[in-house]
Parts: sequence; structure tokens; C-alpha cells
Amino acid sequence: MRYLTEADIEALEIGAAILGTGGGGNPYIGKLRTLQELRRERPIRLISLDELSDDALVATIGGIGAPVISVEKLEHGEEGCWAVRALEEQLGRKIDALVAAEIGGGNSMMPMITAAQLGIGVVDGDGMGRAFPEMQMTTFSIYGHRSVPAALADERGNVVLFKHTMTEEWFEKLARATTVAMGGSTVGVEAPMSGRYVKRAAVPGTVTQAITLGNIVLQANRKHADPIPLICSQEGGVHLMDGKIVDLKRHLRGGFSVGEIVLEGIQSSSGRRGSIVFQNEFLLLELDGLVRVSVPDLVVLLDVDSGHAITTDVLRYGQRVAVLGLPCHPLLRTPEALKVVGPAAFQLHDVEFKPLRAT
Amino acid sequence: MRYLTEADIEALEIGAAILGTGGGGNPYIGKLRTLQELRRERPIRLISLDELSDDALVATIGGIGAPVISVEKLEHGEEGCWAVRALEEQLGRKIDALVAAEIGGGNSMMPMITAAQLGIGVVDGDGMGRAFPEMQMTTFSIYGHRSVPAALADERGNVVLFKHTMTEEWFEKLARATTVAMGGSTVGVEAPMSGRYVKRAAVPGTVTQAITLGNIVLQANRKHADPIPLICSQEGGVHLMDGKIVDLKRHLRGGFSVGEIVLEGIQSSSGRRGSIVFQNEFLLLELDGLVRVSVPDLVVLLDVDSGHAITTDVLRYGQRVAVLGLPCHPLLRTPEALKVVGPAAFQLHDVEFKPLRAT
Repeated sequence: MRYLTEADIEALEIGAAILGTGGGGNPYIGKLRTLQELRRERPIRLISLDELSDDALVATIGGIGAPVISVEKLEHGEEGCWAVRALEEQLGRKIDALVAAEIGGGNSMMPMITAAQLGIGVVDGDGMGRAFPEMQMTTFSIYGHRSVPAALADERGNVVLFKHTMTEEWFEKLARATTVAMGGSTVGVEAPMSGRYVKRAAVPGTVTQAITLGNIVLQANRKHADPIPLICSQEGGVHLMDGKIVDLKRHLRGGFSVGEIVLEGIQSSSGRRGSIVFQNEFLLLELDGLVRVSVPDLVVLLDVDSGHAITTDVLRYGQRVAVLGLPCHPLLRTPEALKVVGPAAFQLHDVEFKPLRAT
Repeated sequence: MRYLTEADIEALEIGAAILGTGGGGNPYIGKLRTLQELRRERPIRLISLDELSDDALVATIGGIGAPVISVEKLEHGEEGCWAVRALEEQLGRKIDALVAAEIGGGNSMMPMITAAQLGIGVVDGDGMGRAFPEMQMTTFSIYGHRSVPAALADERGNVVLFKHTMTEEWFEKLARATTVAMGGSTVGVEAPMSGRYVKRAAVPGTVTQAITLGNIVLQANRKHADPIPLICSQEGGVHLMDGKIVDLKRHLRGGFSVGEIVLEGIQSSSGRRGSIVFQNEFLLLELDGLVRVSVPDLVVLLDVDSGHAITTDVLRYGQRVAVLGLPCHPLLRTPEALKVVGPAAFQLHDVEFKPLRAT
């Protein structure tokens, strides 16, 4: 168990954005909120999976909606508390700790903010080891736990409780419709479960992993060194291409930010052509017409100079980016997981998942 | 207190359709379900407002969605029970009786079915004295009670609880979005309130009123008499026109059935021209370019021969209809009520409500 510092949160912002593969919400605003909680002397207690009590009641937390909306429609700040309280009332029991539904992007900050406000712990792990666009795409759900009962709150104070849904996909569909009706972004608290189950199903240690990644980038920046090889070496990933965005299609559909970008190789990648499909997150990278990385492995876009991640909400024509492939956690590569987070789950039916390999 | 008979339910179907002013859901399927409950020896106990205990816990019940959908997407039959149980769990208390959110159309049958299944009572009254398309348009809501907490269930078994909404309009918006995501029709149980409040805010005696109207039509049919003057005399209404539908626009928008019909006068109305605007229910009748009846007063379309009501989901070109105006209950004509159910609430901004008068 340890308490997170302001320096940890600064590093978490950068590392979580890398693991966010373009999505998970912009972490900058979440960082500011988290720092504000620390400055109000509300400590953030990080609990490793080993330390977590088997009988603890743990719930996931995360923002729902398109990142491009959540940077414009600011939160009230206490949505997470309202949703936790609604769920506690339903269960007749206090929630002991929160775990990020996804470590990627701004959603890494959601458990920090709400746990600080409520004085409870944050689990060092998450349900994705990255970010995914839909709510049934957590390891908690994949390995058999239900997301409902779940509570969802908006910045006005509207609170809706999903008491029973027939499938995880129905929960996703109803929570998404509610989020769209609420203006496109909300905070959800889901899947109340035992510490015992969290130990088995969570992607372990991902808060620490994101902080470590962030520190690598920050240190390289300070030394004017190139962080990209360090990130690849830390994560076992591959630096696949440097390119310039020469085409960008992005629109909102059903509450998601969906689209495609085309990259023209620069520097040592000169003459190569890349294309990336996204739905909130980057899903698929093709290089010169061949699939090189697909979900659930991570397609990561970094600013070619600073090594900071580029999220789908700030993509723009002419941007110069480094494209990395990082391997996902083994919990996401099992047959059960691939059914939910493999290419076919994103309507990429002609793509077969092949684990990322260095070439 | 009395127990409703099969004959009562047959009459209720016809009378509720008249009070439904075209909406409230098609009562035929609801009637079949209600009769089925009676034949399973599950009695339906009707409680007058006088008999209702001040301390009873009463909730409203009704189908949500466009009538045109609910005739095609059949219910499971126990949605109301699922929603009642979700609300009881939330409140930690049993619900003692149900009251129709709206007496008009199929929604008159909803409390009968669920109360029979649960063995609880039905209040002789409702929240509209007719039918209206939106959920904040009940006298319960108009006179200050909140519709939340409220539970909504679909035929699959999905159950969503609206725990807190900032306004009644937010509840309508979120429940509507959930209903659309669930396929366009659901059952909602709302506004848990005391018997004391129900006595003050309900439109009184409307179950009995609908049964009486239905019996008038059935008796006239048996005697080959014209029921229309009898209906007008019973309700203090006016027979304004007989016409043939010569134009019909109807489409689904935001989960509502909206449109307009144009009528050409027949028989004694020959040479006159009528037009009617609807949103699930008929809202406004113009005769020869002049407004004659507007919400909250009732625009009623009856088959010109049988006197049976014609709902917006079965309107068709060439239909021959009698157009009646019936006065709404005084609870709907107060300034508070007109803000919520007057013409402006339906975007009919150039129409000023003038109480229906015999001419």
C-alpha cells in the first residue's frame, strides 16, 4: 500500500495516455481534478492486488462517452460519488475500494478522484490494461462477472441505476443510450465484486505500470533523449513507423468518435504508407496494405519529438507521429477474451488477430 | 370497493379508447391480458379515492412508447411486476395499490394486469383523465409530486431504475431514450406516493367513467342506436363534425407517433374541412381554419357507424369518422396544469387554450 504523490499523478497522465491507444478520455482534465483532491489533503491510497482483502467490495469506475465530447462538456466533479452512493444504497453495503474500468486515458484518473473524495482505496490494476470503447470489454466482464447493478450519473445530478440487464451487451446499449440522452458523457460505477474476484480477473499493476511509463517519458524529456526506444523496451513493443497524417476522417456515431487516418512515412519510414481505424481507441494498423497490429494489442500514436501520446480527439492533418505496437496483457489474448475484444467484436471481420511480434 | 368483472373489462376497453383521444396504446391487447388474469382467478379490486387509506403507498403504472410499436412488439406480460419489485426494493417497502398514469387507451389496463398478478388494489382514478404523450404530464407531477424513483422494464427482463432526475422533463427524456434503446415500448412504474396525495391530485373516478362510457356504446350497438349523442351527453361534449380522412401524415420521431390528418366533411358536415395534429394523441382540431378544440380538452375520433374510438395507430386514408370535443377535468385547466399540458407544451405556440364550449 502506498499513497500517490503529485509527481505520480503527473507521470500517470502521460503513461495512461500511452496505454489509452488514443481513447479513454483526455487525461489532462482528470489530472487537474486529481491534483486538486491531493491539494485538499484528500490522500489517494493505492492497494496492490496482493494486499486487497478477499472480502472487500470493489466496484469499477469510468467515464462513459466519446473523448471528443468530454473535453468540452466538463464534469461537475462529484458524479462518481453520486453513482457510488446509488450503488451502495442498492446493495445495502459500503464500497471499500474502486478500480479503474480502463487504465487508458482520463479514465485512469476516475478512481483516484472519487476514492479521494470518499476516503476509500484504489486498486493497482484495471479491467483492460489499456482502453476499449465499450463497457462489456473488461476482463471483469469477460471472465464472468456482471456489470450490473451499475449506476450512472451526469453533471446535473441525474442518476440512473441499471438493476438488471439480460446481457453485458444490453447493459452497454442502455448505458450508451442514457449517456447520449444526458449529453454524451457520464460517469459510471459498475460491477460490484469481491476482492477475491478482482485478484483473479483484473489486469494487475497497471496504475504502477502507467506511472512507470510516464516517468520514462518525463526523464527522457528532461535529458533531451528519445523516449520511444525506452517505451518499447519497457513494454516489449515495436516502433513500427514515423509518419505524417495526410488524411483524417472523424465523426460522432452513436456516442462514439469513429474514423480513420492515413499516414505517409517520414524520415526512416519514407515511402511507407500506414492507415489506422479507430472507435474512440485505435483498433487496427495497416502498413503498406498489410495488417501489423490489431485489437486487443495496442496501437499507440506518440508525438514524434516528445513521445507524448496523441488521443483521437486531438488528431489533426499534418501531425507527425511515431506509431508503436505494444503487446496486450495475456488476459486479453485468451479465446474468451478475443470473442469480446478481438477484431470481429469491432466489425473488423476480415482481420484475424495475430499477436504482435518484433520483425 | 368492488371487484371488476369480465363485462367491466369489455366496457373499459371501449371507454378507455374514447378517453385515449387516439393514444394511450391500443387497448385490445391489454384487454386480452386482463381477461386472462381474471380467468386465472386473480381478482381485480377497484378502490375508490374515498376508500383509499391515507398511508397506503401507491405508484403509477403505464406503458411507455409509441402505440404503433406496442401493437407489433408484444409484451412478456410480467414487465409491470418486475418494475414494481425494483421500486419496492429501492423503497424498502411494499406497494399497496397501483393507479393508471393515464386512463386513456391500453394504459387503462396496465394497473389491472399487474395488480391482479401481485394481488394488490387498483385506484379508481388516474393522472390524466385522458391520455397524453409525455410522462411529466400527469396531475401527480403537475401538482408537485416527483415521478422518480421510477422503474422501467422491457419484455426481455431488462430493468432500469431512475433514482434521481433533476426535473420531470429530464425523467421524460431519459425514460424515453431508454425506451427507444429497448425497442420502442416498455412498462414504467413511477411516482411512489401516499394515499393522501393521490386523493388530492388524481383525476377521480376515471376507471368507472371509462366503464360507463363503454357500456353506453355497447348498449347502443346492441339496440342499433347511435351512441354518439349519448357519449356527448354523458361527458358534456360536442359532436363537431363527420368527415372522411383525405390526407394522413404519420411518422415515428423520437419514439413518438407524430403527424396530421385532413378531413373532408360528409353528411351534415358536407363542405367543411377539418385538420387534426397528433403526437401519439390528438392535440388540436381546426375546423375550416379555426381552432375548435385543443389540449388539454379531448379531441375524440369515433367510427361514424359504431361509435368505437379510432387510435392514431390505425388511422387510414378514406376512414369515415365522427369528431367530438370533450371537456377535460378541471384539474387539467388550472394555470399550473396548462403550463404542462396546454398547447404551448406541444409546440403549438400560436394556439391559446380556450375551454371547449357547445355552440
